[in-house]
Formats: sequence, C-alpha cells, structure tokens
Amino acid sequence: MQSQLIDAFKKIVGPDHVLTSKEELLCYSYDATPGFANLPDLVVAPANTQEVSRVMTLANSEGIPVYPRGSGTNLSGGTVPMKGGIVLLMTRLGSIVNIDAANLVATAEPGVIVADLNKAVEEYGLIYPPDPGTVATATLGGTVSENAGGLRGLKYGVSKHYVMGLEVVLADGTILNTGGKNVKDVAGYDLTKLFTGSEGTLGVITKIIVKLVPAPEARKAMMAVFSDLDNAGRAIAAIIANKIIPATLEILDNATIRTVEEYAKVGLPTAAEAVLLIEVDGIPEVVEKEAGKVFEVLNANGADEIRLAKDAAERDKIWAARRAALPALAKLRPTTFVEDATVPRSEVPAMIRAVNEAAAKYNVTIGTFGHAGDGNLHPTIVCDLRDAEEMERVYKAMDEIFATAIKLGGTLSGEHGIGIGKLKYMEDQFGAAGMQAMRAIKKALDPKCILNPGKLVGEC
Amino acid sequence: MQSQLIDAFKKIVGPDHVLTSKEELLCYSYDATPGFANLPDLVVAPANTQEVSRVMTLANSEGIPVYPRGSGTNLSGGTVPMKGGIVLLMTRLGSIVNIDAANLVATAEPGVIVADLNKAVEEYGLIYPPDPGTVATATLGGTVSENAGGLRGLKYGVSKHYVMGLEVVLADGTILNTGGKNVKDVAGYDLTKLFTGSEGTLGVITKIIVKLVPAPEARKAMMAVFSDLDNAGRAIAAIIANKIIPATLEILDNATIRTVEEYAKVGLPTAAEAVLLIEVDGIPEVVEKEAGKVFEVLNANGADEIRLAKDAAERDKIWAARRAALPALAKLRPTTFVEDATVPRSEVPAMIRAVNEAAAKYNVTIGTFGHAGDGNLHPTIVCDLRDAEEMERVYKAMDEIFATAIKLGGTLSGEHGIGIGKLKYMEDQFGAAGMQAMRAIKKALDPKCILNPGKLVGEC
Repeated sequence: MQSQLIDAFKKIVGPDHVLTSKEELLCYSYDATPGFANLPDLVVAPANTQEVSRVMTLANSEGIPVYPRGSGTNLSGGTVPMKGGIVLLMTRLGSIVNIDAANLVATAEPGVIVADLNKAVEEYGLIYPPDPGTVATATLGGTVSENAGGLRGLKYGVSKHYVMGLEVVLADGTILNTGGKNVKDVAGYDLTKLFTGSEGTLGVITKIIVKLVPAPEARKAMMAVFSDLDNAGRAIAAIIANKIIPATLEILDNATIRTVEEYAKVGLPTAAEAVLLIEVDGIPEVVEKEAGKVFEVLNANGADEIRLAKDAAERDKIWAARRAALPALAKLRPTTFVEDATVPRSEVPAMIRAVNEAAAKYNVTIGTFGHAGDGNLHPTIVCDLRDAEEMERVYKAMDEIFATAIKLGGTLSGEHGIGIGKLKYMEDQFGAAGMQAMRAIKKALDPKCILNPGKLVGEC
Repeated sequence: MQSQLIDAFKKIVGPDHVLTSKEELLCYSYDATPGFANLPDLVVAPANTQEVSRVMTLANSEGIPVYPRGSGTNLSGGTVPMKGGIVLLMTRLGSIVNIDAANLVATAEPGVIVADLNKAVEEYGLIYPPDPGTVATATLGGTVSENAGGLRGLKYGVSKHYVMGLEVVLADGTILNTGGKNVKDVAGYDLTKLFTGSEGTLGVITKIIVKLVPAPEARKAMMAVFSDLDNAGRAIAAIIANKIIPATLEILDNATIRTVEEYAKVGLPTAAEAVLLIEVDGIPEVVEKEAGKVFEVLNANGADEIRLAKDAAERDKIWAARRAALPALAKLRPTTFVEDATVPRSEVPAMIRAVNEAAAKYNVTIGTFGHAGDGNLHPTIVCDLRDAEEMERVYKAMDEIFATAIKLGGTLSGEHGIGIGKLKYMEDQFGAAGMQAMRAIKKALDPKCILNPGKLVGEC
C-alpha cells in the first residue's frame, strides 16, 4: 500500500493504531480456522464509530478490502484477509455503554468480551444466554457477526435471538441505526437480523443492543450412557415429546468418549455408543419436576446407566467431560477442524452414523460431539495439515458430511458461520436462486464489494 | 388492462380464478384500514407455487403492480392496490402441509387461517403463539408478512420469532427457499427474517415453516385497578424486575375503561386511571408461585383493588373486558383507527400521557389500551372519515403520537406493519440512511418495483 494512503489511515486513528510491520501483520493473517492465512497490508484499530466511518469512507473510495475482526476465535476463516487490504481491529470499541434492567436490555460496543458482558449483567440477576466455547476471549461483535451459539442453544437459541438493535457503518462510511429496545418492533425490513450473522460482509457493527433474560434460579444435570446409538436418539426425541426443553442436551459419540476418557479419566464407559449430558434449568419446582421426568424418559428408552448430579461438584464433573471433548480430540493430531453440520433433531442418529461411515471410508479420525437437542453436531476431524495425501481424504470426508447434512434437511452451520471454509457448499444448500438473492443484497449495500470480500456469498 | 393480458392470466390460474367485474374488484379495493381504497385491474387467485411463479413472471415482464393479499384484515393499508394492477389472492394456497411434532415445527401454505393452524397442532399438545385479534379470519401468510403479534407478545414475541423457513416467489418468478426445520441455522444472510414482515414488497410467500411450542399446562389471570397511572407503570416495571414474564400484561386507560363499561357492563371502575389485566402461564407450580408474586407486587405498588380469577369463568370475564375494548370504542363513531405505537416498556406511562395530551389538544376521542408489558399500545382514534375538518385534527394528533413514540425510543409499529398508513413517519425513525438501505434491498430483489409498490419503503 502506498505510504501516503497509510498516512491517511494513521491520521484517522492515530499512528499508534495502525500496524504495518511484518511481525504484527502476521498476527492478523489467520484466525482459529486451519488452512487459511494471508497477510493484510495493514491493521487499523479505530477507537469509535466516527473513526470507523472515516476509515470506511477512505477504504471505499480507494477500493481497499476491509476485514472486521475481534479476537479472531472464528472457526470458518471469517476474519482472514484473503485479498490483503485492511484488517479492521474492533477491540478498542470495548465499552459496555448501558445496562437497562427495567427493559431487560444492554447496549455494548463490539469489542466487549462476551464473558465480561455476562459478569456485568449478573449483578442484576440477568444473563446474556449465547455462550460459545470461546466465551472468555470472543468479542460480542464477533459472536454477533458469526451468530455464535453455545451449549444452551436448545432452550435459549443463538446470538440472533438476542440482538435487538445495531449501529452499523456501511461500506461507504454511512452510519446506520437498526432496531432498538422495543420488545415488539416490526417497522421496516429487519435490518438487525440481516446484519447479525452477515459475517462482516454487509457492514461494520459498532454498537449492539442485546436482550437479557432472568438468570435461572436452579439447575440440575445428569449423564446417561447408551450402548445403542438409536436408543440415545429415541431418548432425545422422547424428552422433547414430553414437552421438556432442557437448557442443554449434549451428545458424545464413541470416538469422543474413548478419547476423553484417555485424556481426562473422568470415568466414562469406553464401550458406550453414546453418552447424553443433560441440564434442565428454571425455578426450583420446575427443575425438580423436569429432571425427574427426564430421568424416567432416559430409563424407558434403554439408557444403561444414569448418573444424576447430586451437588455442584458432581454437576461440574459432568460438564468437565463435555468440555474435555475438544481439547482431548485436538491433542491426538496437529490439526483440528471443528465443524458444525446441523440437522433437524430427529435426524441426529442418522447424521452421527453418516459421519462414522465417512470416517471409515476415507480413513480419517473424526470424533463427534455436540448439541444433540438442537441437532447441532460438531464432527471434529483431527489430522495433519502438512500431509497432502491425508488432507485430500479429510476434505473428501468433509464434502460427504456436509452433503449428508443438507440431504437430511440440515444446514451448513449451526453456529460457526460460513466464512470461506464452507463457501463451496453454499449453493448446495441455497440453490442458484438463493445465492443470487444474497449476492444482490450484498451488492446493494456494498457496491464495490470491499467488506470481507469473497466470504459467505463468494465473489460478487 | 388489455384483454389479451387478462386472458394470459386466465390461462395460468384458470378463468374462474381471475375476477374482473366492478363488483368483485370493489371487494378487493380496500382492507381493514380506514382512508385507503383503490380499484385493482383484476384479482388473480393462483392455486399453487408454480402458478404464483408464472403470474409473477408475466406481471414482471409487463411491469404490472402486484398486491399479495390474504383475508384483508390488515390495519396499515398493506393490501390496498393503490396503483391498480393485480390483487394476488393467496387464499387458495390453504393447506397445512405437515405437522412435525418431533421437531416442533409445522409447514403450511399462506392461505391457512391462523386459528385453524392452532386447532390442528392442539392435538399434539402444541401451540403457535402469535394470536392477533383477527386470529379467526387472518391468514398465516398475511400475519407473517405483517409480523402480527397479539396478546401473548410479552412472553412469546411476534410472528417473526416463529418463522423458521419460507418458500418465496420473487418478483421475476424465481422460487426461493429460505431456512428450514433446524433450531440452529446461521448459514447465509437471514433471508427468512428479511421476508417476514416485509409486507409483500420483496416476494410472495408460498410456504411457511413455523416453530411450535408446548401448550402451557396452566394459566391464572387477574385484574388490578389503579387510580394513579404512574403506580400502574411502576407495577409493570416491578413485575419484570421480579423476573416474572407474564404471558399477557394488558392495560386499559380511563377513556377505554369508561367506554367498555358503558358498552359491556362488566363492572369496571369508571374512575380508575388504569386497569391492568395479567395472565401468567406455564406448569402449575410456576403459575401458582408467579401469580402470588404478581399479586404482592400489584399490592405493593398502589393497586386499589385486585381481582384474582378463581376459575375459568372468572378468567373469561377478565378477558371479555379486554376483548370489548376495540368494539366498544369502535361503536362510538363511524371510523376507527387502531394504531400500534410502541415504546420500551419503561416509557408506557409517558406514552399514555402523551396520547391523552394529543387527544385534548386536538379535541379528538382516543382510547388507549394494549400490551403494556411489551410497550405495544393501541391508541384507538374514533372519528368520522367524512368530516374533513375533524380528520385534519385526527391526522395532527396521529403525527404527534408517532413523533412522541420515536422520541421515547419507540417504534412506529409493534405488530400492525407500516403499509401506507405510517409511511410518512418512516424516515423519522430510520433516518435517510436507513431508508436508503431498505430501498437498496427492495431494488435488489424487485428491480422493477412491482411488488406492493409504494408501501413500507415508499417509491423506489
């Protein structure tokens, strides 16, 4: 990039907030997704909405690609500057603007860490439900842009269910406000939901109004062991059929169970085809009643063993097993792909079986765990990116997994986004008509295609 | 319209399903909104998606305006064919395609009556929560297009919170599928939410996948009388502050109370400044606990009297008072405008006061009732459309009411949509930037602007 242009960006955000050295640029050339990396020309870190607007106006007039980025915990290559240009680092917009308990909403800047927001609203007895695994490092802006979910998705949904309003800077620097604090608000097109989950391709989010909910008073966790995967599937269906929506309903498949047990020695039965981890929450009376009912349902559907957490320590032990799933699998090999193929919940056993078949067919190691209650599975492929022959098999297995998800009425992403990693499958899910409609919207709002170009909807 | 062209539409849908007589056209020249009417050139009633697609392809190539319409219960002029052209009557697409209880979803065509959908899912112990006052006549397609809400919005939200997927025919006849049955689905732009509430300006909805929820096992209703409006406001805030989200939390202001009492003799205290009508629902233990807590809160915040419904008959009596509000007010004068100005719930007393001031200032009759818990009020103006001098005062009062709503951080519509009735206020809420972004999206998907032209985002 010409030094004059770099100086112009330095003038907007201050010289300390433009990074240009090779070492610094390298740090922003990748995110948590294996296989994608590219050096940006510079990293620009604005301090406020006005600076974002001025950066965008200049970038747009010069046709420079801009990649908004928070903490870089992205799992679909969403922040990688594939075409060079500017990584727009949003972490300096890091304030919680306001907590409005009377209206059950909080307003925050995109650089706020999700866990910090939760800590701040806790004293009002409220929670912000989206809880991705990266909650302690991920920014609110990143999670909203990627529509991040988490363990509580079954009952509480994903980020988009909590975003009520946004301040967004468009590609040309225009500042736009969408939505607000109103519980019911149906005026105009739902731009709030359009920008939420748009992965930085339509605008730069500079302020976020989120809905908060009362913290549950009580919770109860249990673990059920199944020697037959189909029984586990039937148990999941029967819990929902009994009108119980647990906060969390997780599954570990056999490969994951064995790996976790070897890694963490938490007492998992290594021969089991599936383990379900379940938590109900709410007011104490409901929790007792629902936990009892879930126990009955698990029993009636062939659970070989059910462990009910009697206290907080036992509860923590159950969730330690779940939390160990990813690190345990990741330890096996140098490279870890955490996918998020998602299907209607009735198709969870079929999907797990298809993943196992793909693993066998292509001789790759895949452990599957995830949010069985909402059909959002995480087939986790461990491999070695440096082994070209193995990677060919890995990518073939992935192709098959995502094709199956779509065939079962599922979706390419339950909570990680599309980015560049899953771009090639998009037309399979949305058809030519769907892609054309999305690209038309992209072009309408970003005519020069400078915002995270090439991602989510591809070239435009 | 040329007879050749009319014949071409008859060829697509069959001659019986194209209406052209003056008498028939008159029936489709207006909806439930006073003050807007215009004759269409013809009414076309397709039987299925393919016919809708062929109608749109032809209309688009000829540049003929198309106005999708269900039962015409619209309260913002959304279905009125202001530029002539075609009223596209969707009532023949009237099947419930599938109820998938395992995944808690139903798939239905847009012509299904909302109450019929609820009857069909009832036997599975499920409900489709949006319940506008017109539930027995309104179509699912219309309510989804307008983002209709209802009495249960505080706890259950509006239509958009339940639409999971759509089949949509675009202006050029392209058939598009969005979303699906997945609880978590974050792939691509949220086209489902974009079309939902777009008031027929972006596409014609031909199939709808909706989320269902377990029917509450129990419910408990009560009525509280306040001689001081501010105490009522404080009580609303205190209920929420106590982490209770009632299914329904309604308010009637003094003008409405007096009118209802005169009309229905249900024993309302005519001197009260406000009456709150509250219902909690859920599992019996929760309902008992929450009802008790609400009772305490009402007492502690200056309720002069609280009537707790002891049985179903008493419960019905409470809701009869609420249901009488609109017919009672409507009986006063020939013309009724039901508005839906909405504010953050903490601003409800300020909003009611502003409405009363506007009524006094312009000497018009306004009764305000509505969904206090979610800030969605219905200032209902009764007048005579034939009296030009009065109407001038009515429109001035409306201008002031909506300006206040926006000033208080509110929105032009909580559940009725914008249509043509509130179009003139749109820029006040969204700014020039917001309107430009919405129009860019409209043009991207409907380049010839033939779909419900002139509505929601205005001319394009």
